[in-house]
Amino acid sequence: MKTQTIDIRISEVGPRDGLQSIDTIMPTADKCAWIETQFDAGTREIEVGSFVPPRLLPQLADTAEVVAFSRKLKGLVIAVLVPNLKGLQNAVDAGAHKVSIPFSMSESHSLKNVRKTHAQMLEEIGRCVSYLGGVPRERRPTLEVGLSTAFGCTIEGPVPEDRVIRMAEKVIELGVDEVGLSDTTGYGNPAQLKRLTQEIWNHCGRERMTGVHLHNTRGQGLANALMAVELGITTLDASLGGIGGCPYAPGASGNIVTEDLVWMLEAMGLRTGIDVEQLLEVRRQVQASVPNETMYGFLADAGLPKGFASHQGGRIQQNG
Amino acid sequence: MKTQTIDIRISEVGPRDGLQSIDTIMPTADKCAWIETQFDAGTREIEVGSFVPPRLLPQLADTAEVVAFSRKLKGLVIAVLVPNLKGLQNAVDAGAHKVSIPFSMSESHSLKNVRKTHAQMLEEIGRCVSYLGGVPRERRPTLEVGLSTAFGCTIEGPVPEDRVIRMAEKVIELGVDEVGLSDTTGYGNPAQLKRLTQEIWNHCGRERMTGVHLHNTRGQGLANALMAVELGITTLDASLGGIGGCPYAPGASGNIVTEDLVWMLEAMGLRTGIDVEQLLEVRRQVQASVPNETMYGFLADAGLPKGFASHQGGRIQQNG
Repeated sequence: MKTQTIDIRISEVGPRDGLQSIDTIMPTADKCAWIETQFDAGTREIEVGSFVPPRLLPQLADTAEVVAFSRKLKGLVIAVLVPNLKGLQNAVDAGAHKVSIPFSMSESHSLKNVRKTHAQMLEEIGRCVSYLGGVPRERRPTLEVGLSTAFGCTIEGPVPEDRVIRMAEKVIELGVDEVGLSDTTGYGNPAQLKRLTQEIWNHCGRERMTGVHLHNTRGQGLANALMAVELGITTLDASLGGIGGCPYAPGASGNIVTEDLVWMLEAMGLRTGIDVEQLLEVRRQVQASVPNETMYGFLADAGLPKGFASHQGGRIQQNG
Repeated sequence: MKTQTIDIRISEVGPRDGLQSIDTIMPTADKCAWIETQFDAGTREIEVGSFVPPRLLPQLADTAEVVAFSRKLKGLVIAVLVPNLKGLQNAVDAGAHKVSIPFSMSESHSLKNVRKTHAQMLEEIGRCVSYLGGVPRERRPTLEVGLSTAFGCTIEGPVPEDRVIRMAEKVIELGVDEVGLSDTTGYGNPAQLKRLTQEIWNHCGRERMTGVHLHNTRGQGLANALMAVELGITTLDASLGGIGGCPYAPGASGNIVTEDLVWMLEAMGLRTGIDVEQLLEVRRQVQASVPNETMYGFLADAGLPKGFASHQGGRIQQNG
């Protein structure tokens, strides 16, 4: 494995956020093939699944197996999503490196989604931190709380920014390692992202939020990603081919599309460690595995600009 | 007409850049209805057509009539595109306020598009400036040169940045009022936009470039627009419904989509003067006029965020 400097870490969430949103259940072998080829393309963090009851998300029922396979890929950060302590215990048993608990900033959404009030969610997060205190260091994953619906909620509408900041402070005080802003609904805009990020950094410390989870529901995903990178955010979630789409918007991907994001960053001279041409090949492989599902994004249709070479820093030679 | 402060001027280019790219010829009455309703929605600059030989672009053969109609809309800046002196003379005769000459930074593209070398284009631009010197001040339009293919060319590939800057300097020295960066091919990225803008400002003066013309071929249009706005660019071209699409990329709009851009800016608290809900209504009207053409963009499908109110500055009340 070659060593290289990376400016921006792309966390591929397609195998979790993408696959949980489609009806097709991708076979375990295909998931593992996806993860391995995307690792080979240079991706170093992949959210491979979710530890939720299989009756709720049969698409992700094989997460423990997928984690076990992924552990063979040296250098890969294996991320999983869990809704509660039980899920966290399963994630630790499986050997995940990073665990994310979604915590909806809209209480109405939280009640609808996990049947917990904010107070109950904070209690659950506290139990998770206590449990991790008893896990041997070498098996203890990083614990992140994803501040979902942080940019607004389809039930409540606007979500007050001071509530998001207060909740971020509370979960950091409880002892979680990191929080992450999550634009679950695709309501976010770059100015809002800037205010929320800077306020969370002011209240919790810069090292407590290094990543954001953005959607592209209103076409604003890459603009928000640009703002995040300009501010100094170093991890961006994205989904290959925007797989899963967005239930609220027929033509829109849910998550930002990995290949479009990687192209933009590499063209800007920011190193992601990912080979964008290999990534387009992974996309073709995943599409073949779920032929009835729509893949989103612009780069795959438009193709790379003529003469584009990734890792050249995007800067064109000054010889003309 | 209400007076209001505007932070960012949106120059609607759909009636020119959009309509020249579709096979359907929109009737003059429908064009005028489009321009009027979009003016009513708050748009204060519209590129209404192009003075090129009708055999080349029959879709825009009625530009003089459309300009004459548009002059009834008080406060509207009527922009047109012209390829040469002859076109400029027609534009002045018709009564346009702003005239843009596209000047391709790729000489191969220039030869293919207008059969002129860079030297010949510079001569033509010089003749245009001389001609305008003899036009009475009250009838003299602003003259802009659009630096097309400034971010790269589908024939030549990368376009050296120092060439773009040199050409910008030359046309400003010739006496044109402004230059504008144009991402004709959708190759541009925010870092490149920043370098080119800052260098042009350094060499020509900030007041010599206030606008950019961006495309969304690789999904990067709004990210580039965000960078432009962050730098201090105050005029952004966009096309309603991205009409016309992009010949190189089946699923992509050519220009950035006006309603997506206006939503993003308004959500950020930047005033465009445009009512985004009225703009969505204009989109429906234009679609009805060209029912066989595809309209692009995300906002129209996804809808405005719950509780979104334009002109509220995007900032959510801090009461939760």
